[in-house]
Amino acid sequence: MKLKNQDKKSALTENQGIERPEIISAVSVEQIQQFRKIQPSSEELVNGILSGNITALSRAITLVESTNISHLEKANEVINACLPHANKSVRIGITGVPGVGKSTFIEAFGKYLTGLGKKVAVLAVDPSSTISHGSILGDKTRMEELVKDKNAYIRPSASGETLGGVARKTRETITLCEAAGFDTIIIETVGVGQSETAVHSMVDFFLLLKISGAGDELQGIKRGIMEMADAIVINKADGDNVRKANLAKTEFNRALHLFPAKKSGWTPTTSTCSAITHDGIPDVWKTICDFTELTKSNNYFFEKRKEQNQYWMLETINEQLKTNFFNHPEIYKLLEENKKAVANDEISPFAAAQILLEKYFKK
Amino acid sequence: MKLKNQDKKSALTENQGIERPEIISAVSVEQIQQFRKIQPSSEELVNGILSGNITALSRAITLVESTNISHLEKANEVINACLPHANKSVRIGITGVPGVGKSTFIEAFGKYLTGLGKKVAVLAVDPSSTISHGSILGDKTRMEELVKDKNAYIRPSASGETLGGVARKTRETITLCEAAGFDTIIIETVGVGQSETAVHSMVDFFLLLKISGAGDELQGIKRGIMEMADAIVINKADGDNVRKANLAKTEFNRALHLFPAKKSGWTPTTSTCSAITHDGIPDVWKTICDFTELTKSNNYFFEKRKEQNQYWMLETINEQLKTNFFNHPEIYKLLEENKKAVANDEISPFAAAQILLEKYFKK
Repeated sequence: MKLKNQDKKSALTENQGIERPEIISAVSVEQIQQFRKIQPSSEELVNGILSGNITALSRAITLVESTNISHLEKANEVINACLPHANKSVRIGITGVPGVGKSTFIEAFGKYLTGLGKKVAVLAVDPSSTISHGSILGDKTRMEELVKDKNAYIRPSASGETLGGVARKTRETITLCEAAGFDTIIIETVGVGQSETAVHSMVDFFLLLKISGAGDELQGIKRGIMEMADAIVINKADGDNVRKANLAKTEFNRALHLFPAKKSGWTPTTSTCSAITHDGIPDVWKTICDFTELTKSNNYFFEKRKEQNQYWMLETINEQLKTNFFNHPEIYKLLEENKKAVANDEISPFAAAQILLEKYFKK
Repeated sequence: MKLKNQDKKSALTENQGIERPEIISAVSVEQIQQFRKIQPSSEELVNGILSGNITALSRAITLVESTNISHLEKANEVINACLPHANKSVRIGITGVPGVGKSTFIEAFGKYLTGLGKKVAVLAVDPSSTISHGSILGDKTRMEELVKDKNAYIRPSASGETLGGVARKTRETITLCEAAGFDTIIIETVGVGQSETAVHSMVDFFLLLKISGAGDELQGIKRGIMEMADAIVINKADGDNVRKANLAKTEFNRALHLFPAKKSGWTPTTSTCSAITHDGIPDVWKTICDFTELTKSNNYFFEKRKEQNQYWMLETINEQLKTNFFNHPEIYKLLEENKKAVANDEISPFAAAQILLEKYFKK
């Protein structure tokens, strides 16, 4: 309300005020609308994903990968809304030490699958990249053909995180990709760290990629990985390598028979292939189809997925309980002292644990 | 004070009382003294153990095995006092599925060792016995000769406990046996459960006992156990079995070479033996001596023991944190609901974990 100064005779006057500006400027309104476009609602994201929109999918993955705690709730909303539409795929883990040709194999294998009408998503779990700064899949140019394929989606590994964090992000990215209609999920990992156990716990089929050689190449692979494998594929079986690759295949086949039978009822296979000549690539897919047919008929496929879900829930709880304990300021110093005392046989490991636990629970 | 009734003329009289009994009877005193003898002080126990007294050793083990919480402090006192005198032994884990002849092997091997002047303690980790009620080593008559040997000490497995509990007791029993002068500790386990990982984490040398056969006998052994083995010994290599045992030896030897090199620098060996003819028994001991010589010279032996101590401290903490969480009354119901929702893809495993953790830490 403007005061009408001219009507007053008093010395107490007020000059006419300037026009009050609009509280919300048109510029701001436009900016906010722009912002809303950049930050779509979780409903918009979900709708986009379900209609197969790749931009929505990428944005949702970025949201899931965000370390900003305020994004967590929205990410959970999107994931939970996508869950009923996910789960209809085959999830394939591929591991092998650097040098076995994982990228070229995935490129050839992925192209073969899109040729069959499949929609292929390629993800990676590589917590080591935080140290080496050399993320696998980081350089998309290593999959030149696949990256151009409209039925393929390649997402480099999330970096800067612990294994637990990377695993979580990958696990949720699978859900998003499946909801977006991808029916074949390939998860790449380097066979030298702990990440294989994590990947093994989120896939249906675990493929170990190898090359033939003097036996030394086997040394790089982490213990336990060979036992996880549903198939061992000897790559680079081309040119002069074919004979050696066949020998390696026989060797691995013999070794696999020494392992106990798998709960899945599946007997792990060995084969050779070449990412260059494409020999053996269709056989790998045939093996995976045989596997899913068998494990779906005996229900193992579905039971394992349920178990994997529960595993990730319990694993997350266990990790968080440990984090909470070991990051407790009073525990840290006491822990270092007790670790030393225990190593030097000054106190029993159990007595030391008791001291630490009493401190923690009395805090 | 006695009332002298005869001096009183009143009708109010009191009869003379009977002699008041001693508050503490001589019988009770004797019983208490006896009881004190039954419950020696921790100092008495430690002195007894250090002088090689088997009764003191057995009593201390019983104390360690007690589930009575009031015994815990005393048990910790005894263990901590024994620690500086322990640690001077070789600890051998022996595993194999039922039927490979573990008891007869340990009897023959143990007798061979006492013949060399060794003092041998035989323990067992067998949490499955709580279910099957068939404890390994429970029937000492299966080691008739060894049980009579004054340089051998056989302790059946503690039962009625979780793996964590059994492992702790075994771990502390090793300390007590070592302090009592036993220089060779053998820990038996059945190769079908989780107990192998526990045993592997408390021994220096891990021996996998097998028998020859059509390959089916391999199926019973748990995954990962073959990779843990420092030696695979094919038992029952006698009579008609010798040829088959040698074939099996060759087969396993080939398979072992497919595994990555061990951190210890040790290459796992394969051999055959017979607990009946005693062929190959000295070779097993020779292998273990070669192993300790190598790993002591490269310091792995001592480093591993330190790591094992720290492992048990951290493992105990992790177990206790989980126990505390999962036994929390409010968590239990919520957990069941979330497990179901997660299995049915109604909620993401991570969102479910978050709900549970928030409940727990806000309690």
